Amino acid sequence: MKLLNTLAPAAVLIALPSLGLAQDEPAPGFDEIGPYIMTTLLFLVGGFLVFWMAAGFAMLEAGLVRSKNVTMQLTKNIALFSIASIMYWFIGFNIMYPGDFNGYLAFSITPTVLEPVGLAAADASLDYASVASDFFFQLMFVAATASIVSGVLAERIKLWPFLIFVVVLTGVLYPISGSWQWGGGWLSEAGFSDFAGSTIVHSVGGWAALAGAIILGPRIGKYKDGKVNPMPGSNLALATLGTFILWLGWFGFNGGSQLAAGTVGDITDVGRIFANTNMAAASGAIAALILTQIMYKKVDLTMVLNGCLAGLVSITAEPLAPSLFDSLWIGAVGGVIVVLTVPMLDKLKIDDVVGAIPVHLFAGIWGTLAVAFNTRTEISEGVERTFSQQIGVQFTGILAYGVFTFVAAGVLWFILKATMGIRVDEEAEINGLDTSELGMEAYPDFSKG
Amino acid sequence: MKLLNTLAPAAVLIALPSLGLAQDEPAPGFDEIGPYIMTTLLFLVGGFLVFWMAAGFAMLEAGLVRSKNVTMQLTKNIALFSIASIMYWFIGFNIMYPGDFNGYLAFSITPTVLEPVGLAAADASLDYASVASDFFFQLMFVAATASIVSGVLAERIKLWPFLIFVVVLTGVLYPISGSWQWGGGWLSEAGFSDFAGSTIVHSVGGWAALAGAIILGPRIGKYKDGKVNPMPGSNLALATLGTFILWLGWFGFNGGSQLAAGTVGDITDVGRIFANTNMAAASGAIAALILTQIMYKKVDLTMVLNGCLAGLVSITAEPLAPSLFDSLWIGAVGGVIVVLTVPMLDKLKIDDVVGAIPVHLFAGIWGTLAVAFNTRTEISEGVERTFSQQIGVQFTGILAYGVFTFVAAGVLWFILKATMGIRVDEEAEINGLDTSELGMEAYPDFSKG
Amino acid sequence: MKLLNTLAPAAVLIALPSLGLAQDEPAPGFDEIGPYIMTTLLFLVGGFLVFWMAAGFAMLEAGLVRSKNVTMQLTKNIALFSIASIMYWFIGFNIMYPGDFNGYLAFSITPTVLEPVGLAAADASLDYASVASDFFFQLMFVAATASIVSGVLAERIKLWPFLIFVVVLTGVLYPISGSWQWGGGWLSEAGFSDFAGSTIVHSVGGWAALAGAIILGPRIGKYKDGKVNPMPGSNLALATLGTFILWLGWFGFNGGSQLAAGTVGDITDVGRIFANTNMAAASGAIAALILTQIMYKKVDLTMVLNGCLAGLVSITAEPLAPSLFDSLWIGAVGGVIVVLTVPMLDKLKIDDVVGAIPVHLFAGIWGTLAVAFNTRTEISEGVERTFSQQIGVQFTGILAYGVFTFVAAGVLWFILKATMGIRVDEEAEINGLDTSELGMEAYPDFSKG
Repeated sequence: MKLLNTLAPAAVLIALPSLGLAQDEPAPGFDEIGPYIMTTLLFLVGGFLVFWMAAGFAMLEAGLVRSKNVTMQLTKNIALFSIASIMYWFIGFNIMYPGDFNGYLAFSITPTVLEPVGLAAADASLDYASVASDFFFQLMFVAATASIVSGVLAERIKLWPFLIFVVVLTGVLYPISGSWQWGGGWLSEAGFSDFAGSTIVHSVGGWAALAGAIILGPRIGKYKDGKVNPMPGSNLALATLGTFILWLGWFGFNGGSQLAAGTVGDITDVGRIFANTNMAAASGAIAALILTQIMYKKVDLTMVLNGCLAGLVSITAEPLAPSLFDSLWIGAVGGVIVVLTVPMLDKLKIDDVVGAIPVHLFAGIWGTLAVAFNTRTEISEGVERTFSQQIGVQFTGILAYGVFTFVAAGVLWFILKATMGIRVDEEAEINGLDTSELGMEAYPDFSKG
Repeated sequence: MKLLNTLAPAAVLIALPSLGLAQDEPAPGFDEIGPYIMTTLLFLVGGFLVFWMAAGFAMLEAGLVRSKNVTMQLTKNIALFSIASIMYWFIGFNIMYPGDFNGYLAFSITPTVLEPVGLAAADASLDYASVASDFFFQLMFVAATASIVSGVLAERIKLWPFLIFVVVLTGVLYPISGSWQWGGGWLSEAGFSDFAGSTIVHSVGGWAALAGAIILGPRIGKYKDGKVNPMPGSNLALATLGTFILWLGWFGFNGGSQLAAGTVGDITDVGRIFANTNMAAASGAIAALILTQIMYKKVDLTMVLNGCLAGLVSITAEPLAPSLFDSLWIGAVGGVIVVLTVPMLDKLKIDDVVGAIPVHLFAGIWGTLAVAFNTRTEISEGVERTFSQQIGVQFTGILAYGVFTFVAAGVLWFILKATMGIRVDEEAEINGLDTSELGMEAYPDFSKG
Repeated sequence: MKLLNTLAPAAVLIALPSLGLAQDEPAPGFDEIGPYIMTTLLFLVGGFLVFWMAAGFAMLEAGLVRSKNVTMQLTKNIALFSIASIMYWFIGFNIMYPGDFNGYLAFSITPTVLEPVGLAAADASLDYASVASDFFFQLMFVAATASIVSGVLAERIKLWPFLIFVVVLTGVLYPISGSWQWGGGWLSEAGFSDFAGSTIVHSVGGWAALAGAIILGPRIGKYKDGKVNPMPGSNLALATLGTFILWLGWFGFNGGSQLAAGTVGDITDVGRIFANTNMAAASGAIAALILTQIMYKKVDLTMVLNGCLAGLVSITAEPLAPSLFDSLWIGAVGGVIVVLTVPMLDKLKIDDVVGAIPVHLFAGIWGTLAVAFNTRTEISEGVERTFSQQIGVQFTGILAYGVFTFVAAGVLWFILKATMGIRVDEEAEINGLDTSELGMEAYPDFSKG
């Protein structure tokens, strides 16, 4: 017989005490530990899928900026994810999930601590999942929020002020507002519903970016003589790859947010969520495809990509309750929103390089409102919330996240602007951030057109 | 203790009725629900891997077309996947899996309906998996079929006729012929064997593309004065990335097709399938590597990539029964087929831009025949089918899928050609579809060589 | 009711005997088979994630070489993975895991044989996992080793001698030295600890590459007149994509190396490993980001990417025992090592095109030593090894792997150099390997800058 792989023989020794224990009392069977194992697995698989979205944002944004700013955009994306990983461990996770708290702001600021190695079943939260898997899954969400900001402010913001903003956003702002709902705070008490974060993740990123875009101002030459000057992305293949990566990652984003996979009901629900998420992405893409054909007589690929992403954002607030047909039209409305609001932002001279505000903020608001059409919330046992009651609570939540994030981010952007400055100088912007700020081109072998 | 994440508190409330039920009778244990949970998980993980193949096809094709047609190729790929998602929900899934039917064509045309939220174990198909997970997994296969067509017909077909073709292919043609085998129809009764779809998915895509390629004609300048004019792909890095993505996705494609993962036998079989699938891909690549070195004195990367894919297609009809050595030579023959038949198509002046007909149709036929070497089919209990009996049935199946798809697709292409036209005009083709049809370049910053 | 998908009806028939058996004695329940199913699943999911690292290495290397050598780099990467798959099946796996052997070298050289189709629970290693899943997982590791070599020696080595080296490395050298520890050989007996292979996989690749780099010599013009001539990579977007892919794959690399997932302790440990692995990658990236800013006044993206990878390599020898804070500083030291040693190699005129020697060899040594800070090894039951005892054993292991691999690889490179030559001629190197060796450009449509 083949010898077992002897990686980490020490693990066996460490497991001995609990094995010893097992001889005293019978080891718990799968009826007891199966749900814990499956939910932990859901978080790990869901988590690595959402991790993968970091690559998706990086490719999408690298593809949608001009070639002279690609290295900077890549640098920001890998740095922001790394910062989010550290800050969410350092303070974010425990600010967001503080346990019993006042519902608005948790003051216990401590780094995340994991369970000991070789956890005994008796010491595990058998009705949930491992802390490490939960932490791993949740930290991927905060990184998505920061990625949204980096896309909007591309091609003109300095590296270090942006990274400092990310430190505060991922360590403090997102965790505080997140605690209101997912930490069991006041919005959760009020009946607000946002399954996987149309508002809590996507709109928050959108609001933070919007505040930044207004304070930072548009790129040089973007709005000139009353005209909008198109600045096409340098690599649509990368942008499309990024969209497919995000689409894939979203199965983990929404599916993992079921937060349980160890019963027939839960795993079946995860399946529903996968199917609905896919449908909303598809219908968002097709809506943008058809609408750009009608409006411009030509299909616009970047709109199709953003339409797809808007479909995904739209279904994120409630990917479980809708039927496949509901998901289709909810996603399609998201796609329509993108096509209609991208030019609107340009009219307001708000320069959103990759279209992330329409995708994450506007479609995020839409998705959060659309929850009311499929509301599953009950105000007390057996008493269902009506559509108008639910939509009122949804508005409250949207407003609360909007005001808090927009104001807090705005103040932070102002402070950064006043102290270290947030914008590269004119010459650097014209030459491109890659050579001027980093001294490094993304595609040095190719001559520019 | 840490407060549990309170995402979707409503889900708890909805689950109450079944929890209430659970108090009356004991909740079913893992011996009863474990297989359902594991098989549902197999479909979800397998499904997201096959979803990922859509990105693989997009990158492969974007890399193998010239830079002036990249935006169009990307647009087609994301649009075809979205259309497949909608059409397969709308009618395809129920045409393909109609339950009890005449074995040739199901007339019950209804959209897919999922199980209710929070399904009780008592209402679940505990011997299989959740409907949503099954639907999710199966719809990824139809999208692969459509992707094959888009590669062959690249660089000259109009966007909208292509998309209309995809509507019919994914909603009607593929589901009808699929029902013959996977829906329990006449070929299944006859003993045809095609585990994960060398014929049902890959050859069907190949036949549909072949009909299109003949009716559409070759690209301008491809065959001139009796010579074949090479038109090299614009980005071999993307093409290689696409191949790696497809290779990865294929583990889900073949492994998920075990359709069960909750017993020792089933999960062990899934492992066999993973190992065999990997081996066939590797040997297909190496066969093409060696053969191009011998034939042309130089290794041809695009042949190696297509050899790898041909190895994968070859093992798809039977990835379980072969030994690793069987998988090696079955995959290697696939690689050889590609190297030998790519020039053959050129001699026939059939212009297949990415080499998808050799990969998916020819290697698909080979793989379907190769099943007979490892036949596991019994004609009645205890009576095994001989090699010659099995290969006869395999021929019947190949012929049936070929005739049906080639004729039906051909008629459809003719109708599209006669009504709206399927080919862009000469000037548009020479300038490239990106600027002429979409007004958008994929790599606008780079000057053309 | 919906008819079940009838894929592979034969599988049902084959399962009949064991079903028949099940009627005689009760089928084993999930308490018995659950751990086997979960661990097999861990290997399959972990395995496909590590497979994905092959694409990561391919993209990283294609992005970091000059555009004239991209096709060659892609060819080498897909070929080396394919060769590894075949050689590890043919002899490698059984050399590495020989069962009972002398602890130094196994002489039983046989191809890998999988379990039969539809394995009965009674015939399975219920305390471990399926052979196929184990083989699938392990073979992905050897491919990573070979990928490291291809990056270092890029832009000047001939294709075929490189591939012959890969044949020996993956079939013989790596399996022999791997057997010392993971096969239960002498280093395992001695108490050496290398959880997922900082030394066994990464340093071994680094040593093999270092021997090659010395014998092959630097690229023409790299070191001229006492100056180091920078040769920037052609596509930093691809290099960043490759890094994200490797980061993702590493969750499988380290997490799967827990080798068990079917108990509360094991799945919780897998979660710890995921969280620690992510932290080390993040801190490695941030350390390089800050350090390049301080040292060069400009952030260097390629250093950030390599810092991230060095963080991952550093935590690989012990990703389970450390706390998240331990992982942070262990990974950060890895990032610092890269920034400091890349220029050091250049001073020695050792030309490492992608920086893989600092990342995989130097950070691999660091990670292997760092195990001693979190040692979980006991020398006998209840007697813990001290820090100085453990670090002594770690040095022994590092030295053993270094001497063996460096000498064996060096001899092999010398033989290849003496017989067929390992370096392309000067003109070919200057023109680029793509046109000179393969007659094929990676980006033919774009003019060179």
